[in-house]
Amino acid sequence: MSSYSHSFRFTAESTANGILERDFLLGDVPGVLWSPAAPAAEPAPLILMGHGGGNHKKHPAMSGRARLLVLSCGYHVAVLDAPGHGDRPRTAHDEAEIDVMQEAMATGKPVGPIVVRYNDHLAELSLPEWKAALDALQRLPEIGTDGPVGWWGINMGTAIGIPFVAEEPRVAAAVFGQHWPDTLADRARRITVPVEYDLQWDDEHIPREAGLALFDAFASEEKTLHANSGRHKELPRFEADSAVRFFARHFGRPNA
Amino acid sequence: MSSYSHSFRFTAESTANGILERDFLLGDVPGVLWSPAAPAAEPAPLILMGHGGGNHKKHPAMSGRARLLVLSCGYHVAVLDAPGHGDRPRTAHDEAEIDVMQEAMATGKPVGPIVVRYNDHLAELSLPEWKAALDALQRLPEIGTDGPVGWWGINMGTAIGIPFVAEEPRVAAAVFGQHWPDTLADRARRITVPVEYDLQWDDEHIPREAGLALFDAFASEEKTLHANSGRHKELPRFEADSAVRFFARHFGRPNA
Repeated sequence: MSSYSHSFRFTAESTANGILERDFLLGDVPGVLWSPAAPAAEPAPLILMGHGGGNHKKHPAMSGRARLLVLSCGYHVAVLDAPGHGDRPRTAHDEAEIDVMQEAMATGKPVGPIVVRYNDHLAELSLPEWKAALDALQRLPEIGTDGPVGWWGINMGTAIGIPFVAEEPRVAAAVFGQHWPDTLADRARRITVPVEYDLQWDDEHIPREAGLALFDAFASEEKTLHANSGRHKELPRFEADSAVRFFARHFGRPNA
Repeated sequence: MSSYSHSFRFTAESTANGILERDFLLGDVPGVLWSPAAPAAEPAPLILMGHGGGNHKKHPAMSGRARLLVLSCGYHVAVLDAPGHGDRPRTAHDEAEIDVMQEAMATGKPVGPIVVRYNDHLAELSLPEWKAALDALQRLPEIGTDGPVGWWGINMGTAIGIPFVAEEPRVAAAVFGQHWPDTLADRARRITVPVEYDLQWDDEHIPREAGLALFDAFASEEKTLHANSGRHKELPRFEADSAVRFFARHFGRPNA
């Protein structure tokens, strides 16, 4: 994995609506870094975001959240394509797992066990990538090593985020949500930073008790559960605003 | 109870820091109405707040929330002293129930059954008072009958608020929290307006499952649970800001 940490380079750059967007490659892992277009005098906090399953680093859910974080808080925001996602190739293993998942969906079988297993596999591959990305991003003067780092990821972004945050002392606050506790609860018990956790009260995939059990597992002295009525895909948009305020409460709004 | 509706009068008035505070008497029930000091061109929404057990209409928890609602949203905010609270006399029944409650606290016995029973009694007395207060307040031109009405009450403010909102079609959104479901769940099943519900994850008085059961009971299509780590009295202050945003999301900020 240390190969990643020596091969970070920007591959494209554009500015629009007050946001500087820079694509990068970390080894062969593509990522994006969004920043305030106007250079700040001081380094600013960095939020790492994990995208959802089947999505990619620039999915509107990611760019929309980044827009809020950059424009209203002055933060930097980075996303990596997860293994088998976005601009990354799928392996035969990816294809096989996706086939099984789609067949379960089509035949009305529970997808939970498949998603849990596949996401756990992707998390294992992702962890060294995220660590190397954080190393590289903190070498940029506009980020630096002194400022706080946050994690924000729902669904697969939680499956990758919980193991990552459990092992990564640089992450000081995290927003998670909407996952099964099976492979994650033990890691959540090692997380002590403030956590905001989103859960859908009428989730047709994740049993309510399973979602509550994962929230319960965090060892954080400050943790907040936001449970909203509605099904799995109906997480209200106002929870994105809430997550931004959560980070602003802990990290301030240095350049806003 | 109709006697209340014919005897509303202001008894004192003062203005400070942008807020007009008017004490009133509704029959023999004392209340307070907080409003923006600068008269608005249009009627503004009204938030009714129920105070907690052992507190009163002008407890800092009430005036602090009112300040947020008046200054950041331009709303009117009204609170009544509950029976046996604030400037109202205690009956022999009040004294007896309070004695039993304090003895339970002192000897480490569960207070739940006593609080549930006593609050249910107070709610029964309060309901016609709140209805008459709303009638009277809506006769004021700065409030009127067209604008939305909200309810915000935690603890005893939920014990009174759930029966009130279940029967009162004028209330269009409500913030509740921190109560047992025993006498309230059936009434919550008749509430369909948007609800935000606060619960303490480590409440030493209200079992977690009991709090979750009350949240589950609301029939509202839009409902949000905010569960925070911490004990009964440790509800985070940021939940007050969240409640204000909840009302602003539904009622707008007409004069802010």
